This record gives sequence, structure tokens and C-alpha cells, in this order.
Amino acid sequence: MAKLVLVRHGESTWNALNLFNGWVDTPLSDRGRLEIQDTALSLKDAQIHFDYAYTSMLTRAIESTNLLLQGINAEYIPVTKSWRLNERHYGSLQGMNKLEAVNQWGEKQVKAWRRSYDVQPPLDSEYQQVIEVEGQEYPLFDQRYADVKFGDLPLGESLMMTVDRVLPLWFNEISDRLSKNQNILIVAHGNSIRAFRKYLEKLDDSSISELEIKNGEAVVYDFDNMLSIVDKRIIRN
Amino acid sequence: MAKLVLVRHGESTWNALNLFNGWVDTPLSDRGRLEIQDTALSLKDAQIHFDYAYTSMLTRAIESTNLLLQGINAEYIPVTKSWRLNERHYGSLQGMNKLEAVNQWGEKQVKAWRRSYDVQPPLDSEYQQVIEVEGQEYPLFDQRYADVKFGDLPLGESLMMTVDRVLPLWFNEISDRLSKNQNILIVAHGNSIRAFRKYLEKLDDSSISELEIKNGEAVVYDFDNMLSIVDKRIIRN
Repeated sequence: MAKLVLVRHGESTWNALNLFNGWVDTPLSDRGRLEIQDTALSLKDAQIHFDYAYTSMLTRAIESTNLLLQGINAEYIPVTKSWRLNERHYGSLQGMNKLEAVNQWGEKQVKAWRRSYDVQPPLDSEYQQVIEVEGQEYPLFDQRYADVKFGDLPLGESLMMTVDRVLPLWFNEISDRLSKNQNILIVAHGNSIRAFRKYLEKLDDSSISELEIKNGEAVVYDFDNMLSIVDKRIIRN
Repeated sequence: MAKLVLVRHGESTWNALNLFNGWVDTPLSDRGRLEIQDTALSLKDAQIHFDYAYTSMLTRAIESTNLLLQGINAEYIPVTKSWRLNERHYGSLQGMNKLEAVNQWGEKQVKAWRRSYDVQPPLDSEYQQVIEVEGQEYPLFDQRYADVKFGDLPLGESLMMTVDRVLPLWFNEISDRLSKNQNILIVAHGNSIRAFRKYLEKLDDSSISELEIKNGEAVVYDFDNMLSIVDKRIIRN
């Protein structure tokens, strides 16, 4: 019986500033590091031995992975970093304060962008760009994505589009590993975790959009040999 | 023209206590973390973009890798963790204080174990064992090595034996990546680094045994398209 654990990264510096973060590469805040260390303590208590870990190409998820594995004495397990686990790409909203966005476009529009299943945010106009926030420059697409097929890179995604690019990782790799009784840790982002939860828990389009996932929150699934879920529990930090 | 950088991990808690460390899995000391952060600053100044990193299965090297990649803003690059990069296995000397070993066996014998090329240390008698040092238990072989072919696991190595199990990683993977113009970072241990340096710099058996490599020390090689070394420089922290 294999286990899958989905963990959302700890608070990032932009989560703390209430900015749309998306694919912009921000580090964990001090609070975010503590949140993940708390999650690690809970996972250590659960005494799960992980065989393999997946995370995104974004620093806040990778640093969360490193802290989690450090906290459970399992830094030696292999870790794959995949762009498919990146946060939903928020188009030209990235770097914008969420309240300022409400002032500019109205609450109804911003809610539609944030909490509907199939509405795309305003798209970025091009791939090669740099966002400047508070005097600091953040490249949006850099050499880390050099191996991604060009048409696969998003300029702004609905949650539906995020689900579509996350799930190939389930079908091509993760489900195989679980079938071989490997326990898997995935450290990712609010919307890439929603993608797994929608599929695994068969949630409909509106309930998945409303599902809140806190920083550092862990969901633990037990699977039977047919990859049906036999138990699910949530660990909050 | 590809670059290869070899970095020795920062000081471990057992380096600080002057114990034979080998395959025993000890973390970085506070000083070790600072040493590696210093090395990261030097590598950042050198502005090398790494495509791929290799490290061992041991925590002190993995934590050093994480700190280095954090320091050069490259946490997203893929990292392979291989037992072939582990420190030389020091047999039943592991966990023993180096001065106590001299008191017990004499300086000449301990020097032969530490600084000759082909002398094996006293071997461990079995694979499944736990070392106790200062009231704490350290397993010597655990599930992290489950995928290693049984006969490949050492019970005590001469430097020559370490070289023999390190070099397949060069021939099977690393040289291929360099040939494709990928820049490679290897974060490893005194003796697994000696293995690369012996081969790459064509050092004889006695000079490689005497070569001292400090914690946090980085060697940078530039290769031409035929994988000949055209430049070598050492960055000390």
C-alpha cells in the first residue's frame, strides 16, 4: 500500500506582500521556513519513509523540499524538479497586489480570475520579459525552461489549463511509482496541488476552485494496489 | 568549452571532532555551513552557469549542495545523488578519533591507512550495523543503499578502491555531459574528489595520497571539445 503526500510550500516573500506570485521566482519568507519545519515535524511523527520526491522549478517549492527532507532525515532520496508542478501562471497579474487589482478591475472580475475554473487571467504579451517589483528585477522565463517545448510554456493560465499540464506527470511517472509501492512526496503550489486533488478526489470544477490550501498544509493519501484511495488525511501546521 | 567544478563539502560535526567519518552520515557543523556559503560567493563571482549537479548520498554533501545552489540562485538545476561519490569507506576506523587511533596502532600504521594509495583500513565485519558515538546511534547501511548491487557496497576501502568505484560515474555520465557543453558541479568528499583529480590531472599514486583538499575548497576545470583540460584554478574559501 503506497502513500502520496502533497505539501504546499511555506509562505513566500510575495505571499507575505499579498502579490500575485505565479511563475515569478520568489524565496521563502522567514515565516515560510518555520511553517515547513513544522510540517516536517508532523511528517516525522507520521513515520513515512519516502522513496522519491517531486517539486517544481520554483525556489519557494525547492527550498521547502530541502527543509522537509532535512527535517525527516531523508535528504538522500532522489528529487525531480519539474516545470509541470509550477504554480498556475497568472499572466500580467503577476507582481500585482491583489487589493490593487480589485481597485483596478473590480472584485467580481478579480474573483473570476482567482476562483473560476476556466477563466484565463490577462495574458503576458511575450515570453522574454522581466518584472520589476519594489526596485528588484524578476525574470519570468530564464534558462531553467530551456528544455521545455516552446508551445508548452504558458503566458497566463486558467486553473483548467494548469490541471492539463500537471496531470501528465501523474500518468507518466507518479502513478507508476505508486504501483511499485513507492511512497511519494510532492512539494508544490496551491494550484498544482489543486490539480492533483481534483483528479484524485474527483472534485467538480466549482468545488476545486473554492478549495483553500494553506502554506505548509500536507495531504496524505493511502492507495490500494489498484491505485484507489483507501484513506486521506490532512495535516495542518 | 565546458566547465567542471569539484567542491569538497563544508566541515561536518565529525570533522570538527577529528573522527574518521567515512560513510557515517553526519551533518554540517555551523562552521561548515559558513564555509560553503563563502564558496558560493566565490562561485557567484565566477559567474558560471551550471547545467547539472552531482553529489553523494551523504547529508554533509547534500546540504553543501543545497547551500551552494541557493547561494548562486540555481536551486532549479537537476541534482543526482550517487553512492559512487560517497567518502572513502574507512572500515572499522569509522567513528574513531584520529589521535586515539594513533595511540592504539602507532603513527606509522595510521599514516599508512590514511595516506597510502592501496592499503585498506581494518574492515567492518558485516553490513548491517550501527555505530554508537557519544550516545548517538549512526546506522552504517540503511535503505538509501537498497538499489546498490550488493557486492558493490564496501566494508572498508583503500583510496585505490575508492577511485575504482568513483570513475564509472565519469565515464558513464559526466564526460558525456561535458562533451555536450554542459557545465557540471560536483559536491563530494576529500577522497571522492581525489579520485577525479588523480584521473583528470594524471597524478601518480603517491602525490594523490598526499594531496590535501580543504573543506569548501573548489577546483574549476575548463575543458576543450576533446575533453582536455585547458585551464585549472583553485578557489579556497
